[in-house]
Amino acid sequence: MKHIHIIGIGTGNPEHVTIQAINAMNAADVIFVPLKGAAKEELAEVRRDICERYVTRPGIRISEFAVPQRQTADRSYPQSVDTWHAEIALIYKELISGIPDDGRGAFLVWGDPSLYDSTIRIIERVRQDAGVDFDYSVIPGITSIQALAASHRIPVNLVGKPIEITTGRKLALAGLQAPTTIVMLDGEQAFAKIDDPDAEIFWGAYLGTEDEIVRSGRLGDIAADIVALRAEARQRHGWIMDIYLLRKGRDFEE
Amino acid sequence: MKHIHIIGIGTGNPEHVTIQAINAMNAADVIFVPLKGAAKEELAEVRRDICERYVTRPGIRISEFAVPQRQTADRSYPQSVDTWHAEIALIYKELISGIPDDGRGAFLVWGDPSLYDSTIRIIERVRQDAGVDFDYSVIPGITSIQALAASHRIPVNLVGKPIEITTGRKLALAGLQAPTTIVMLDGEQAFAKIDDPDAEIFWGAYLGTEDEIVRSGRLGDIAADIVALRAEARQRHGWIMDIYLLRKGRDFEE
Ligand SMILES: C[S@@+](CC[C@H](N)C(=O)[O-])C[C@H]1O[C@@H](n2cnc3c(N)ncnc32)[C@H](O)[C@@H]1O
Ligand SMILES: C[S@@+](CC[C@H](N)C(=O)[O-])C[C@H]1O[C@@H](n2cnc3c(N)ncnc32)[C@H](O)[C@@H]1O
Repeated sequence: MKHIHIIGIGTGNPEHVTIQAINAMNAADVIFVPLKGAAKEELAEVRRDICERYVTRPGIRISEFAVPQRQTADRSYPQSVDTWHAEIALIYKELISGIPDDGRGAFLVWGDPSLYDSTIRIIERVRQDAGVDFDYSVIPGITSIQALAASHRIPVNLVGKPIEITTGRKLALAGLQAPTTIVMLDGEQAFAKIDDPDAEIFWGAYLGTEDEIVRSGRLGDIAADIVALRAEARQRHGWIMDIYLLRKGRDFEE
Repeated sequence: MKHIHIIGIGTGNPEHVTIQAINAMNAADVIFVPLKGAAKEELAEVRRDICERYVTRPGIRISEFAVPQRQTADRSYPQSVDTWHAEIALIYKELISGIPDDGRGAFLVWGDPSLYDSTIRIIERVRQDAGVDFDYSVIPGITSIQALAASHRIPVNLVGKPIEITTGRKLALAGLQAPTTIVMLDGEQAFAKIDDPDAEIFWGAYLGTEDEIVRSGRLGDIAADIVALRAEARQRHGWIMDIYLLRKGRDFEE
């Protein structure tokens, strides 16, 4: 049977790639490299760099493919995501059909495939759809959360305390709850509307790349600076990927 | 100045080690390998295996050291952790003092240094303590959460939904709240007391090692089986490390 590896490649630093990921890339007949979003070119460069550095077995085909944009007009968020996944599933099916019988394919995924990424979901959808027969496995990769924590040299949790991971959209709705809240996919700078000036923020953009920027401090002191810095960086690059951690309280407080 | 690398090494599978971790190990004059807990011997084996596979530069010293046990009698949880960290800080100070001037040391950390681990906190404590001068950086590693998700081939979050990471202790107190809850450090099998039979559980023990066990299903159907399986495995090995993910609801439900 055909086998697919869904491989996490980290979030910008090619040295975040694991030995397991390198071995899986080199076991593949074909490596599928998605091109998507505003950062298409820059992120494609990171993926190409990773293939150039680590793919050493001759004869492996690298196949770039375009990922369609999600359409949001006239539909709810779940509907829009569902339709989008269905479109991508058709593309994957096509790609997987092109793998030789009993061959191996590899999908490179930004960060870790289990964190706010739908490659696993869509591959599962293709597999349940009759018409192409294959098995698959998942290879973890360093996430943007870990890149953020490493650059700031901070533990994510307070001692013995829980952690929440959420989106900008949900933070704006629910407010700051947990002692540690990590916010991803925030296009609206929800942190700037949090009414908790004593909270601390640890923010990072373009983590792991040469353009990495990090800032940290009391939210009340630096929220406006981060909003301005983010807008400026986004303008200059034409795109941005950022993430932040909000912390309330300290270690060893009950 | 001396430099310390705090290096995440993954949670059992030596192939989870990243290129960045391998480079940092090979840049070190001395690699510090902690021995601790009930699983001391087995986990020390994984760390030794990692050094044997990846440390290729000659002349690097590997220094194993024992981590004291945390004393819990007659003190609150924060007090007991604080005293324990103070003890470990003394050991680290000693180890760091032994690094040549302008040399490099590496501390190997299970999983990722930012997730329920105090190496960063304790190193920071040693640094603030006058008497030994050094700088340090953090190198991320694959966490047990990622190992769990990869083995089950599941996304951690439902589409667009938040994730909670917590301890067995906190789950027992707060109950099941988030659509996805990941539970670590659970010595009391808090999942078995969750009154939400339709929730799904994805459980794993000894992840990444040859002894890896995983189970998944409807919590109401398999909680008792997991409790029995866990007790049996723990007895047989003399120790256990396990983690699980609880999920309520499905993708594309509002
Ligand atoms: C669709 S999610 C994918 C997350 C990815 N699977 C991971 O493991 O990090 C994209 C979000 O991840 C975060 N992100 C990914 N890469 C990043 C980077 N290099 N710097 C900052 N944030 C990043 C941002 O919050 C972004 O909105
Ligand atoms: C002190 S925390 C350290 C976590 C580690 N820093 C990480 O990144 O996963 C220890 C907890 O991690 C989880 N854990 C670590 N390694 C594991 C493994 N190989 N299999 C299952 N659970 C593991 C268990 O929940 C355990 O109680």
